[in-house]
Amino acid sequence: MAEGQQTSPAPLLREIIVFGPPYMFIKYEKQFSSRYRILRPWESPIPLAQFLETHAQNTQAALITSFVSLSAAVLRNLPALRLILTTSAGVDHIDIIECRRRGIAVVYAAAMFSADVADLAVGLLLDVLRKISAGNRFVKNGDWAKQGDYPLGFKLGGKKVGIVGLGNIGIEVAKRLEAFGCEVSYYSRNRKPSVSYVFYPDISELAAKSDILVVCCALTEQTHHIINRDILLALGKKGVIVNIARGAVIDEKELVHFLQQGDIAGAGLEVFENEPFAPKELFELDNVVLSPHVANFTEESFRDLYELVSENLEAFFANKPLRSLVSEE
Amino acid sequence: MAEGQQTSPAPLLREIIVFGPPYMFIKYEKQFSSRYRILRPWESPIPLAQFLETHAQNTQAALITSFVSLSAAVLRNLPALRLILTTSAGVDHIDIIECRRRGIAVVYAAAMFSADVADLAVGLLLDVLRKISAGNRFVKNGDWAKQGDYPLGFKLGGKKVGIVGLGNIGIEVAKRLEAFGCEVSYYSRNRKPSVSYVFYPDISELAAKSDILVVCCALTEQTHHIINRDILLALGKKGVIVNIARGAVIDEKELVHFLQQGDIAGAGLEVFENEPFAPKELFELDNVVLSPHVANFTEESFRDLYELVSENLEAFFANKPLRSLVSEE
Repeated sequence: MAEGQQTSPAPLLREIIVFGPPYMFIKYEKQFSSRYRILRPWESPIPLAQFLETHAQNTQAALITSFVSLSAAVLRNLPALRLILTTSAGVDHIDIIECRRRGIAVVYAAAMFSADVADLAVGLLLDVLRKISAGNRFVKNGDWAKQGDYPLGFKLGGKKVGIVGLGNIGIEVAKRLEAFGCEVSYYSRNRKPSVSYVFYPDISELAAKSDILVVCCALTEQTHHIINRDILLALGKKGVIVNIARGAVIDEKELVHFLQQGDIAGAGLEVFENEPFAPKELFELDNVVLSPHVANFTEESFRDLYELVSENLEAFFANKPLRSLVSEE
Repeated sequence: MAEGQQTSPAPLLREIIVFGPPYMFIKYEKQFSSRYRILRPWESPIPLAQFLETHAQNTQAALITSFVSLSAAVLRNLPALRLILTTSAGVDHIDIIECRRRGIAVVYAAAMFSADVADLAVGLLLDVLRKISAGNRFVKNGDWAKQGDYPLGFKLGGKKVGIVGLGNIGIEVAKRLEAFGCEVSYYSRNRKPSVSYVFYPDISELAAKSDILVVCCALTEQTHHIINRDILLALGKKGVIVNIARGAVIDEKELVHFLQQGDIAGAGLEVFENEPFAPKELFELDNVVLSPHVANFTEESFRDLYELVSENLEAFFANKPLRSLVSEE
């Protein structure tokens, strides 16, 4: 009982509502629970609107993931809300205009995960080119000793890599691939004056000029299925594609078709249109490496994220300045 | 028959003897056979010494791999030999002193494979830290849809990486890992004045100060089992090791024991003490990624190697200068 007494909540704990819940919250739940009263709508059988009306009329802070939409309609049911903390790098799931109107501060992960996501992009690319996962299976199945020599892979150095979307993540990918001797160019809404990589305002031209496409852009109405049949045709039979952005940036049905037919050479896919389902047609293909949407899943990033969230919560309830706010621009 | 006539050897073809044979030779056998008469000792049932005595008394050129030892004794059976072409970056399998004495030129791959090997080292490291192979299996087995969230990995950025042996390959590994934000230091016989990485003359100190060891040194009497129980203890429970050097640089039995006991955190292994056999005890461990000694197995490097060998053969038989010779130093 001694331990229970030490960690039992104080009677006047401050309250936060958690949506999702984020994986980071699950990992650090004990720490959060010892300091805050937690509203857990996902554990309640009643509809969300009713839950908020019943329990969250005085709740001032919300912790959410990118999978939870905080529209103006949802926000109306949180009349006391003054702080949203999202564990994501993007904020397209939050009605930012409504937040500004109501004076709700929004804290987000910003570029916190960019390095991890870029690392995974490079890891997937090396795996596809150098057949690392397939080689691991070859050895672990005992096939090396039985069958001998393993097929050749492809060199990364000297390859023309086209980056689709040169934001925080795209820049990190470019920096890494330069060290491998790749020739980097990019497609983006606008030319980035801060970099010297070749800029293609036409994604189809980028694909035609590239050996490899690394997709790093945000998912918006404009980028939905931006990688379609035409782009895959332009990339060509020897082309490789890596997607660490969002599944729906690529027309997944077309991509599966191209991979099945050998009309592109390989793919490293971290995101899918219908997660947690990845296309079964790809499961048998050694030149396709699949990852369960874990590009930011590192102990270190989760600890950083926990610190960002808990420091901001402490600051908020103490009326002190917040950090990593969505800019007022 | 028309095709056979086109590629049939001319009557006065020059002769080379091939040992091994190298994988590159197999891939380009047609090209070699159309230009040279090939002696194939591996296809003969008679002992090598007898084969050489019977067939190779006038042979001037030999193509070999690192798995073939050209000792003074073997060389004595090749009295007309004037050129050795080895497909390897190292030449410790050739009696270089005897070659010098007899005026036999030795052509080798030098740094041709360094970039490919370094790429694989980084690929294996990213795989171990970010669980890429295991994640691929998780998705392809259908476990993602069934089990949901996947365990966290570890961030590469900020890690202290100790490179064991800062030769051509070690330098390439260091260059890449710097771009990932790693802190690079190294152990080597001598401090390298051309780099600014921290130098540890004591490998045990390097291991104690490092989160990750990447083993890139040549195998010599001095480096045999240089990574032993003490070094693994110094590396510690959170340590990760990558070996793209030679299997016997690590005491493999100790390494297996440490990995089984969780006394180090993971390993990426491209080479083994008893290839093509990798320790079966490692087959079930997701934190161990195994690769079937293919660090230089890329289409591009094999083409470069073929060009090096065939250009040197042409030059040799035309009495023109050779390139990529083992230096006279």
